[in-house]
Amino acid sequence: MTGVTTSGERKLMLFAGRSHPELAQEIAQQLGTELVPTKAVDFANGEIYVRYHESLRGADCFLIQSHSTPINTWIMEQLIMIDALKRASARSITVIVPFYGYARQDKKHLGREPISARLMADLMKTAGADRVVTVDLHTDQIVGFFDGPVDHLFALPVLADYIADKTDRDNLTVVSPDAGRVRVADRWCDRLGAPLAIVHKRRSAEVANQVTVHEVVGEVRDRLCVLVDDMIDTGGTICAAAEALFAHGARDVIVTATHGVLSDPAVDRMKNSSVSEFVFTNTLPTPSETGLNEVTVLSVAPLLARAVHEIFENGSVTNLLTEL
Amino acid sequence: MTGVTTSGERKLMLFAGRSHPELAQEIAQQLGTELVPTKAVDFANGEIYVRYHESLRGADCFLIQSHSTPINTWIMEQLIMIDALKRASARSITVIVPFYGYARQDKKHLGREPISARLMADLMKTAGADRVVTVDLHTDQIVGFFDGPVDHLFALPVLADYIADKTDRDNLTVVSPDAGRVRVADRWCDRLGAPLAIVHKRRSAEVANQVTVHEVVGEVRDRLCVLVDDMIDTGGTICAAAEALFAHGARDVIVTATHGVLSDPAVDRMKNSSVSEFVFTNTLPTPSETGLNEVTVLSVAPLLARAVHEIFENGSVTNLLTEL
Amino acid sequence: MTGVTTSGERKLMLFAGRSHPELAQEIAQQLGTELVPTKAVDFANGEIYVRYHESLRGADCFLIQSHSTPINTWIMEQLIMIDALKRASARSITVIVPFYGYARQDKKHLGREPISARLMADLMKTAGADRVVTVDLHTDQIVGFFDGPVDHLFALPVLADYIADKTDRDNLTVVSPDAGRVRVADRWCDRLGAPLAIVHKRRSAEVANQVTVHEVVGEVRDRLCVLVDDMIDTGGTICAAAEALFAHGARDVIVTATHGVLSDPAVDRMKNSSVSEFVFTNTLPTPSETGLNEVTVLSVAPLLARAVHEIFENGSVTNLLTEL
Amino acid sequence: MTGVTTSGERKLMLFAGRSHPELAQEIAQQLGTELVPTKAVDFANGEIYVRYHESLRGADCFLIQSHSTPINTWIMEQLIMIDALKRASARSITVIVPFYGYARQDKKHLGREPISARLMADLMKTAGADRVVTVDLHTDQIVGFFDGPVDHLFALPVLADYIADKTDRDNLTVVSPDAGRVRVADRWCDRLGAPLAIVHKRRSAEVANQVTVHEVVGEVRDRLCVLVDDMIDTGGTICAAAEALFAHGARDVIVTATHGVLSDPAVDRMKNSSVSEFVFTNTLPTPSETGLNEVTVLSVAPLLARAVHEIFENGSVTNLLTEL
Amino acid sequence: MTGVTTSGERKLMLFAGRSHPELAQEIAQQLGTELVPTKAVDFANGEIYVRYHESLRGADCFLIQSHSTPINTWIMEQLIMIDALKRASARSITVIVPFYGYARQDKKHLGREPISARLMADLMKTAGADRVVTVDLHTDQIVGFFDGPVDHLFALPVLADYIADKTDRDNLTVVSPDAGRVRVADRWCDRLGAPLAIVHKRRSAEVANQVTVHEVVGEVRDRLCVLVDDMIDTGGTICAAAEALFAHGARDVIVTATHGVLSDPAVDRMKNSSVSEFVFTNTLPTPSETGLNEVTVLSVAPLLARAVHEIFENGSVTNLLTEL
Amino acid sequence: MTGVTTSGERKLMLFAGRSHPELAQEIAQQLGTELVPTKAVDFANGEIYVRYHESLRGADCFLIQSHSTPINTWIMEQLIMIDALKRASARSITVIVPFYGYARQDKKHLGREPISARLMADLMKTAGADRVVTVDLHTDQIVGFFDGPVDHLFALPVLADYIADKTDRDNLTVVSPDAGRVRVADRWCDRLGAPLAIVHKRRSAEVANQVTVHEVVGEVRDRLCVLVDDMIDTGGTICAAAEALFAHGARDVIVTATHGVLSDPAVDRMKNSSVSEFVFTNTLPTPSETGLNEVTVLSVAPLLARAVHEIFENGSVTNLLTEL
Repeated sequence: MTGVTTSGERKLMLFAGRSHPELAQEIAQQLGTELVPTKAVDFANGEIYVRYHESLRGADCFLIQSHSTPINTWIMEQLIMIDALKRASARSITVIVPFYGYARQDKKHLGREPISARLMADLMKTAGADRVVTVDLHTDQIVGFFDGPVDHLFALPVLADYIADKTDRDNLTVVSPDAGRVRVADRWCDRLGAPLAIVHKRRSAEVANQVTVHEVVGEVRDRLCVLVDDMIDTGGTICAAAEALFAHGARDVIVTATHGVLSDPAVDRMKNSSVSEFVFTNTLPTPSETGLNEVTVLSVAPLLARAVHEIFENGSVTNLLTEL
Repeated sequence: MTGVTTSGERKLMLFAGRSHPELAQEIAQQLGTELVPTKAVDFANGEIYVRYHESLRGADCFLIQSHSTPINTWIMEQLIMIDALKRASARSITVIVPFYGYARQDKKHLGREPISARLMADLMKTAGADRVVTVDLHTDQIVGFFDGPVDHLFALPVLADYIADKTDRDNLTVVSPDAGRVRVADRWCDRLGAPLAIVHKRRSAEVANQVTVHEVVGEVRDRLCVLVDDMIDTGGTICAAAEALFAHGARDVIVTATHGVLSDPAVDRMKNSSVSEFVFTNTLPTPSETGLNEVTVLSVAPLLARAVHEIFENGSVTNLLTEL
Repeated sequence: MTGVTTSGERKLMLFAGRSHPELAQEIAQQLGTELVPTKAVDFANGEIYVRYHESLRGADCFLIQSHSTPINTWIMEQLIMIDALKRASARSITVIVPFYGYARQDKKHLGREPISARLMADLMKTAGADRVVTVDLHTDQIVGFFDGPVDHLFALPVLADYIADKTDRDNLTVVSPDAGRVRVADRWCDRLGAPLAIVHKRRSAEVANQVTVHEVVGEVRDRLCVLVDDMIDTGGTICAAAEALFAHGARDVIVTATHGVLSDPAVDRMKNSSVSEFVFTNTLPTPSETGLNEVTVLSVAPLLARAVHEIFENGSVTNLLTEL
Repeated sequence: MTGVTTSGERKLMLFAGRSHPELAQEIAQQLGTELVPTKAVDFANGEIYVRYHESLRGADCFLIQSHSTPINTWIMEQLIMIDALKRASARSITVIVPFYGYARQDKKHLGREPISARLMADLMKTAGADRVVTVDLHTDQIVGFFDGPVDHLFALPVLADYIADKTDRDNLTVVSPDAGRVRVADRWCDRLGAPLAIVHKRRSAEVANQVTVHEVVGEVRDRLCVLVDDMIDTGGTICAAAEALFAHGARDVIVTATHGVLSDPAVDRMKNSSVSEFVFTNTLPTPSETGLNEVTVLSVAPLLARAVHEIFENGSVTNLLTEL
Repeated sequence: MTGVTTSGERKLMLFAGRSHPELAQEIAQQLGTELVPTKAVDFANGEIYVRYHESLRGADCFLIQSHSTPINTWIMEQLIMIDALKRASARSITVIVPFYGYARQDKKHLGREPISARLMADLMKTAGADRVVTVDLHTDQIVGFFDGPVDHLFALPVLADYIADKTDRDNLTVVSPDAGRVRVADRWCDRLGAPLAIVHKRRSAEVANQVTVHEVVGEVRDRLCVLVDDMIDTGGTICAAAEALFAHGARDVIVTATHGVLSDPAVDRMKNSSVSEFVFTNTLPTPSETGLNEVTVLSVAPLLARAVHEIFENGSVTNLLTEL
Repeated sequence: MTGVTTSGERKLMLFAGRSHPELAQEIAQQLGTELVPTKAVDFANGEIYVRYHESLRGADCFLIQSHSTPINTWIMEQLIMIDALKRASARSITVIVPFYGYARQDKKHLGREPISARLMADLMKTAGADRVVTVDLHTDQIVGFFDGPVDHLFALPVLADYIADKTDRDNLTVVSPDAGRVRVADRWCDRLGAPLAIVHKRRSAEVANQVTVHEVVGEVRDRLCVLVDDMIDTGGTICAAAEALFAHGARDVIVTATHGVLSDPAVDRMKNSSVSEFVFTNTLPTPSETGLNEVTVLSVAPLLARAVHEIFENGSVTNLLTEL
């Protein structure tokens, strides 16, 4: 028989865009390797240029990019980096998106809207991504937007164990800030064995979408309320919900969310609220100007590093999740 | 200049699979046309054979098939019918799926599961569908599973107006039977100006997924509770929820759902419940053996017929929805 | 150089749908492994739910599903199982379809028909199949319907050697039951060194498709006729052909076919015929109620197991075929 | 409402490659139009250059190219012409391929062969073809190779009516030159009401593929035999079959085939044979050097022109076929 | 025959992103219509939200977006707007990109780079674009990056006629600022009948990519030099080239370019140069702070409006170009 | 855990079409292996038939085919060979195209032209190619035409070092024969440290495309001019350029080009020219009838063999290029 043979040894290489270097470094350390040295610059008119300084031919490439601000720039950088991996003969391309941008645009609320969360999945696929790893998507259905494997990780164990360790469980009530987020709160109830309450927005019959009352459905009086959400963006909903809880007699309110987006005026709202603690993970860089004593940031780097390890070694990410 | 010209007149043609002939006939009547005569038979080993008896070349084809029982057979028939339309040179193929099967498998609850709702969208696309028209998807995100336009219609106006007409609104409470269906209930609250309650399943900390208590979150005592869901399948959740409501002092309970799937033992459960009325639409054929006085079936044929008309005439389905 | 390396060891995993568990078990035994434990259930409305109980990430997955009755259910199950493999990060997905459904719909006999055999290939591809292994397709061209490698195995050696062992070759005539199946008979002639005859349907000039006479073309008087076909469905054609052969003086008739579909009323027809033996393979489960002494079932499990082995070890399936 | 409107008038434009200008001209005349003036030249190294001299934006474009010799050049020209139509904003592109090249490579006879007939379909699709019109494919399954509508026309009425008009039907026997072509002969039997015979090649058990005897299956003595095939390439099979028929006492032999490929040494073999007449259509240009009195060429231009007309006007090609 | 018919009237609708509203307005005016009212806002974290205020179902949609600063934001907005058009059932989507971003990344200068200009084409296609209209691409090959029709317009007539009108042609020399842009200069030579010169960068043999000398190849002494390029970004190359021309005795230098990108520090360089006039078109918004007397901006709105008109009416854009 | 494991050893296999057997053999020797024995024949009507004589299942397949004359035949053979590799379960397919045909048709010079260079890339992709290796494309942008990795090798080091070794660098001028090829000349200038000149075609203002004068831009008097191009086809441009150089006082002219296409009447023109030496590589077979003493052919086999080696072993082709 003709031909030449070689061993089938495989190689993992780790790449990162410029959106969240601290997290990328932390994942690399957990994996005992380094990020591939990469040139990434903005040309004068804003076009991004990327080049990798090492050959990645035949490697299983993992590219870390969180969709932080400026979000469109970092998404475009990610797509360009995927393209460069594809054209440099990567064996496989796994995109790690700790915070998946545009996830809230996962359906058409009205006619003639985009479904940008699906578009993002298609853009990544077109650029060359084979697999996506992400954390706490806004809705679970987004997993189905990508035509290929998606490893959807949950920060719930990290966050809930932190809360469980520092509070009296018997006095806890898990609260959803909104009728649309009850499913997340339900998972917290299961894990913490706590009852559920909901802050429900009553809307005006006269003016479309105008909220008239923040109704509290369920018992919160004298309870320690844990308001849970997947992300805090401007903090409007969550801070209004906290106020409603205090108004209905809650003893204290802790806010937790996987993604601390914290767009303006979130920090001001947080400062002005009576919430005793805000707990986030580092899927997004926390604005340094936050300067809030009440903010706790927990790291998802160990979670992501273990997922990368299992993916590369063909282990089970499912097991990993239930172990945590 | 060389060439031959012709007018660009367009033609609508309406086709139906065998899953729900009554609805298809009703839509055709509303549109003032007839279904295209079609041969559809099962071969001895169960393979389906389809042939259209009229030329459809160049026509805008609308194919009606609801995913009723036997569901896999009707889905396969639909795919085969789409293939036949494509190969017979249809100008466009719009698939009307009043009840979209496998919609509950829209995410991975556990590892190594399919996302069958996305798969259905891809199968329809592969067979040749250009557009989908459907009613009250289990989750709105499924619209994003299809790579193309989806006209997602809501039966809420049909159902809610029926309820509004026959009840005293001031005494109504809208109830979600489950933490995962609160968003639907929320829309009902907005339309009826009624307060919200939730039946929440507390699960055992010892045994995975074992529900220990049906907790009622919100006020239901002496109220007329409208339990709302997108579909009633075996009726287990909804009848248990109704019992919980009665146990918490509800004066009466009405159940409404767009899709009356009514698989065994739904009818028995309905007969044994104290619910005063079950209200469905005809997106699915109602089992004739139901024999329940308490069941009301409202027709979505006018809604679907108007959608087809607007699509064909390039009108706005969005407008249509808000008009209703 | 940055990065982490691992060995490229590959892993074969074997999965089976619910259509033909005996054959799947037999293949697994031949390969010295076990089927991956799998949950597969029907929901109350007939929707299929599937979950694998072991991680298959990075594995070369082989999924066995024969398109037996209820055929549309098993096809849909197969597609759903492929989807679950794809989303669980299978390295490759090979679909083993011992009997390929809808194979007879491989062309348009009339206008406005589907080409369902092509559609099946596209559906499998869309769901995520990389390669197909199948046995004795209705026509060889179906191999070209799938956009990727197809290993098309032949049961001819298994069947023909059985016949050769128990008959006097000098007295054999190979008979095609139909003008459209002569190519299969031709291969038998080559292997057995026997002459060819054809049962030819003369059709009425007055009534479309009405067969008036079963003409026998070729010499059959006093011969042992082996009627060969790829499949026996309702048995109509083959039993009529056998009668024609006896009417033209055949000494005896043996019927062989790879696929014993045996839809109603095949068993009755077989019981009422004078054919001395029916020989099938187990690409499909043989209906237990057959209760016919004259039926012989030969196993294709060794053939399929060796094909799987060669595919996994990058051996030659072509060699395998000629060896048998 | 904003926007500008225009009538939806459609325009048919007819294009032709350089493979068979006579047929293209004849089709244009039948349609009452002219071929779009086109520059098509070979560069010095054989690269083909094409440019259309009229705007075709928005037109329904029909491109005629038969796969005559030099076949690879004309296929490549066809693909390049499709690309140019696509990039010039054709509304639709219908490829008319009177003789579809590589049709005999429609399956894998052995391992590690291409399926070139499928490849041709994919190449046309990739270049931009929306629909294919062709005549008498080598096997009907090739229709399923193209992912889109294929109008598969039959020259059988043209050929068979010619034969019927000039012969005594009662004395006719339709003969298939080969076990693989019996289905075509079967259609002739149906149309002419004539019996069937087959020339069957017995192969050596010692030497693979070596034909030892041309066995005649069926009655041919003193009959007028019509040997039918889809194409005559080198004439080897058909002339050997004719000799076998004469040797078995045939009174006369007429050979008909849709496609007169007539590669070397077909003309010599035809000259040396005792066949009284060869009847072809003009799907391919007949070599001018043929110089055979016994050759009759019937035109398919009316058939193709009517198909184009019906496609453009959204009529039924199916009806057209049965009318002829 | 069953079915309903309607006229095939078509409708043009014009949409614009937020990158260059003046140009979009001007094109709308030229076409005698208005831009479709559109909501486009940035959410707090930078995610873009878009909704159209009119139904566009069935319309031929033209979407204008130039890739000005912030370039990644406007590209993402464009993709999202295309997605919304696709999902709202546009009949066709034509993307008008007066300045095509990332066009300079049209090849790999080094290993492991992206080809971002191809990526842009694929992203537009994936989002749903059917056709692209653009002006003076950095290289003509980019037309081939898009899988579909591209109408590539040239501003050369607009710019060159302006120059011709105000200068003495006999004294003109057309100068390419760079070895890579000679082809553009060559077209100017043809149109103006003027000789060619090139400013050629000699690079150091010691230091990679370090330019040591700006060599002038060709005669420029006492000539009026027209330095031509497709775009002026930071102005470094063009201003250095102008200096080299003056140093070699040029009497005067005029700079023309289709795209005035004018990133920092272009305006400063332009102010400090001795160039007598800079001539651009309005494919990009000219920075208002430019404040340069020497800058002339010519409009491409008539050119783009006529292209849109011809595309919609199926006219010839080729003719249009040569007419100008 | 269920399943069977095997080592991940990979295998390289080398295949060649019939276009340039000498080069293929030379590459195989450099790699220390042999070409896979392959049957490739032309059927009587010119259809190509291919079959590989060894199993290639699971192998990394490299297929060598240069687009020499008859170019369309060899392109089609290449596509058919790719299809056969795909269907025989190749693990990956890398197409080595030393000379990439139709590369000059990389843009639309006029309306209604094809972009055949893009079409070639799409055809290769459709047939099944995963990666392309090629040498000195006509324009670098063609790399972007292929949706996947392209290893674009440069023969410049081979050619330029040959020139550098035999000439006096101080006296050299690098000359582009045409305004469109200046970028190639520019690279030579950088490598040889030599000045640049251009032969510029002045075109008539009266007659489109008619060249009136071959203007020499830059200093050539008494210099040794190296006229550089990517390919010499008919030799018209290059020989005219050489004449122009002599007319402007050049001392001597050497012509170099990577690809010696040498179509008629190139050899005659070369014989009649005063050029002292023509230097090509063997990307194409050199016509044996050339019989020119002045022709030197340098081999790219070492370059291609090293590229194949690095691709197979996941090394860096970029490094390889800069090393040479």
